[in-house]
Amino acid sequence: MDSADIAIIGAGPAGMTAAIYALRKNLSIRLLEKKMAGGYTADSVLIENYPGIKKIKGIELAMKIQNHLSSIGGNAEEGLEIIKAEKKGETFSLTLNNGKQIEAKSIIIASGTTHKTLNVPGAEKLEGKGIHYCATCDGPLYKGKVVGVIGGGNSGVTNALFLADICKKVYLFEFGESIRADEVYHEKLREAEVEIHTNTEVFEVLGEEKVSGVKFRDRKSGEKKEVCLEAVFVYIGLIPNSSTAKQLGCETDERGFVKTGQWMKTSVQGVFAAGDITGGFAQTIVACGQGAIASESAYRFIKS
Amino acid sequence: MDSADIAIIGAGPAGMTAAIYALRKNLSIRLLEKKMAGGYTADSVLIENYPGIKKIKGIELAMKIQNHLSSIGGNAEEGLEIIKAEKKGETFSLTLNNGKQIEAKSIIIASGTTHKTLNVPGAEKLEGKGIHYCATCDGPLYKGKVVGVIGGGNSGVTNALFLADICKKVYLFEFGESIRADEVYHEKLREAEVEIHTNTEVFEVLGEEKVSGVKFRDRKSGEKKEVCLEAVFVYIGLIPNSSTAKQLGCETDERGFVKTGQWMKTSVQGVFAAGDITGGFAQTIVACGQGAIASESAYRFIKS
Repeated sequence: MDSADIAIIGAGPAGMTAAIYALRKNLSIRLLEKKMAGGYTADSVLIENYPGIKKIKGIELAMKIQNHLSSIGGNAEEGLEIIKAEKKGETFSLTLNNGKQIEAKSIIIASGTTHKTLNVPGAEKLEGKGIHYCATCDGPLYKGKVVGVIGGGNSGVTNALFLADICKKVYLFEFGESIRADEVYHEKLREAEVEIHTNTEVFEVLGEEKVSGVKFRDRKSGEKKEVCLEAVFVYIGLIPNSSTAKQLGCETDERGFVKTGQWMKTSVQGVFAAGDITGGFAQTIVACGQGAIASESAYRFIKS
Repeated sequence: MDSADIAIIGAGPAGMTAAIYALRKNLSIRLLEKKMAGGYTADSVLIENYPGIKKIKGIELAMKIQNHLSSIGGNAEEGLEIIKAEKKGETFSLTLNNGKQIEAKSIIIASGTTHKTLNVPGAEKLEGKGIHYCATCDGPLYKGKVVGVIGGGNSGVTNALFLADICKKVYLFEFGESIRADEVYHEKLREAEVEIHTNTEVFEVLGEEKVSGVKFRDRKSGEKKEVCLEAVFVYIGLIPNSSTAKQLGCETDERGFVKTGQWMKTSVQGVFAAGDITGGFAQTIVACGQGAIASESAYRFIKS
């Protein structure tokens, strides 16, 4: 069985920062990532609020952090999922999807969130065939085409703006009364001529082999409409990846996010959490700050 | 009287990040700095743990953040001290040392700390040239070298232990009768072979361009000694700059640091705190993350 001082679950900005801080304290770590390192930072079109870096593509910032980590000897082990997590005596035991086990003195949960999928007729069958969750990744497939974005928070709006740069036309559908994104984006949406529908529910995605349109309803008037478009990018919320935290007995809130107190402590001694999994302000800089704190806490826990 | 949505007290990384986030939401701000923008970040010799930037001089990182802020129209007003702070009806009123008054809907306290400086011959001239106040930041510069730590409280001792992991030898000088740090650390100091001198006063730092040694005196026997070393890390106390927080009625801990709960809220509605003033992990990345959260909280408070 492999052992480490700290097992870090998730190699987004929180997990990678925790790893940087731990390695600088000469702790041994395992940084386990289910998919690929970078988290949602890597999927972001453009990040303009990571202090000190005015403007950077999400994938580039994620790579900078990953390069920073590798420059001090750390690396994310990608494609590794935790099948089982439990406390065994003084240490924690993790069973991975490759059959191996890891024993760790402390755990940092930085497992982030997963996009909520669109749950309307047509959505499941057309996923990947015009229904997408990452405009950076899949937007360029629709250059010069008509597309829609569902969700008027910061994610939805920044992605709508990105798509407006390359697509012929962009619709933006928001369920609530108004666009929830930062004010700075409102004028940009107008400039980009994004067609905004607030108070609107998209209730069906049309198409057989690929998306051909959506049906939507004005939630005030009840009026139903239909538009033709070739892709829908969905930003309607996040589901916490909290299965490992739950297996370890960490308290979660009613939405499933891991509760943390001072110093990013969870309800289980020796287990800390950082980043989007804590249900706080989902920003790269916040995740990094919390990763640093969680790492310091784990260090103090191990040394005490 | 000038008015603003948010008055931010202190233009270190926490305050500047709060400003960046607030401006992106089209809030009006005043960013008030007693000395010069940058906080302790600007004082750090070399920062190697700001994720995404492998190695940067503290002053350069501080300037990058300041440039980021100015690129979106924000600026720190330097040399402005708060003389008086009070709640007046629905808003907060700040009286400045230039006689002017500011009325703000919300306050973010990011006023940081002042470290107690070493006040012995040689100390002032060698600050930043072997005399440091942050082992996490500057310790890695002395891998494999001989260093000293002044101060046997938890800060001094945990930092001595950290340094012992990477340095050739660590001296620990404590003025009092015994090491004041938690018992758990005492055995670890022995294991790490830190050479402890209690009842000891360091009375001179040696060196011209950089630190070459210290002179110290046994306070019982009066015997004087001298050792060669390349750096001295000073942990003789931090003083929170909490006068504004106290005037506003924010709860502080027994050391004077501002207490914060979830979302960086203080005990006073509409007042938030971020960075070193909160008594947490004093790191640039942490301060930035907390500044972002405090700004989001202030935004929600103002809009609610």
